[in-house]
Amino acid sequence: MDKKAVVLLSGGLDSTTVVAKAMAEGYRVYALSFDYGQRHDVELDAARRVAKAFAVAEHKIVPINLRAIGGSALTDDRMSVPTEEADGIPLTYVPARNTVFLSIALGWAEVLQAHDIFIGVSAVDYSGYPDCRPEYIAAYEQMANLATKMGVEGERLRIQTPLIDLSKAETIALGVQLGVDYGLTVSCYQADDQGRACGVCDSCRLRKRGFEQAGVADPTRYWPGVG
Amino acid sequence: MDKKAVVLLSGGLDSTTVVAKAMAEGYRVYALSFDYGQRHDVELDAARRVAKAFAVAEHKIVPINLRAIGGSALTDDRMSVPTEEADGIPLTYVPARNTVFLSIALGWAEVLQAHDIFIGVSAVDYSGYPDCRPEYIAAYEQMANLATKMGVEGERLRIQTPLIDLSKAETIALGVQLGVDYGLTVSCYQADDQGRACGVCDSCRLRKRGFEQAGVADPTRYWPGVG
Repeated sequence: MDKKAVVLLSGGLDSTTVVAKAMAEGYRVYALSFDYGQRHDVELDAARRVAKAFAVAEHKIVPINLRAIGGSALTDDRMSVPTEEADGIPLTYVPARNTVFLSIALGWAEVLQAHDIFIGVSAVDYSGYPDCRPEYIAAYEQMANLATKMGVEGERLRIQTPLIDLSKAETIALGVQLGVDYGLTVSCYQADDQGRACGVCDSCRLRKRGFEQAGVADPTRYWPGVG
Repeated sequence: MDKKAVVLLSGGLDSTTVVAKAMAEGYRVYALSFDYGQRHDVELDAARRVAKAFAVAEHKIVPINLRAIGGSALTDDRMSVPTEEADGIPLTYVPARNTVFLSIALGWAEVLQAHDIFIGVSAVDYSGYPDCRPEYIAAYEQMANLATKMGVEGERLRIQTPLIDLSKAETIALGVQLGVDYGLTVSCYQADDQGRACGVCDSCRLRKRGFEQAGVADPTRYWPGVG
């Protein structure tokens, strides 16, 4: 088995499901996480647990300080994480985050001679981030094939998005079927240092509703008094 | 004057000319450099000198360790910098480098509400890197406009490449006309800690020939015994 894939792994519910899916499809998984100055950097502990549980071929955590540019409630402490639904693109949007992450994944894919990059974006139950839409992913793939030596030499690189058309409940159902233990994962934007969730941020609300709709018991550990 | 531009500034000849060009066009320049684990990190001193000489609005140096992925003579000490011309894409190609750099520039541009990113790529006198070609830049621009809140809101972001059709000699002629002091810049891939050049790497050979063809005295300081 020689198919290699770079899989973006945040340590959350979606990216963990994607690791399981890529492995089920027979890929050797090279998991890539980022220490980008995120408020909820405890998600990196979750990423390490997931990488270990799946025994991936390699797990890299690359530091890239997006606090240097700021502009998001996740990377600027002067902004608060919203706890209610709002119209439009929320404050938790991190400018160009997926573009930065995919770019480093692209470099690593080229070094590994991997032809596939997996990312857990969904355009169904999502927060309205522009860099989660299928038209963005298609444009990224086209650019990536012009950017690299691999592309110039006629080897096609694909950006795979197995969750793009799935609701959160469908993602959870898929993960359960693939044996994912969601107790390992952290989705909350303001998880405490033990990885316990606030229950009210965008990410918590989507996750909670997902478990309810999927009819799966929610294994999330919440802040004391929340749940 | 409210036009802002993010300008990628390595500290070399091309990007310095681009800073001069953007300023001549009336942009407020936000210069962006990367400490990416490059062998020739003395170029960052040159970037600081250039940013100061032009009194740019702001100069950021963002650390992003591309040694974590390796795959280039510039970011892997086990590989040597070639000193003779070779066929194809040379070993100094850094996988996805411009894609990574442009992505962080894109994030900063969005935070600044800048609608222009300048990059000093040329498809004439260049080393054959895929991410210096006009078709790559066009695809990047298209992707960038789908990636961002700015793009979604209908504000067009442009990737400007004022050197794309210029030979090295033409770039130098343009810079001289704009008052650039090329003595501030460092292009060599293996410059010593004083910024002195080897004279024989890809980058030195292109630069040297450029000054000759432009009929401009070469202000480059070379290693003792070289020149």
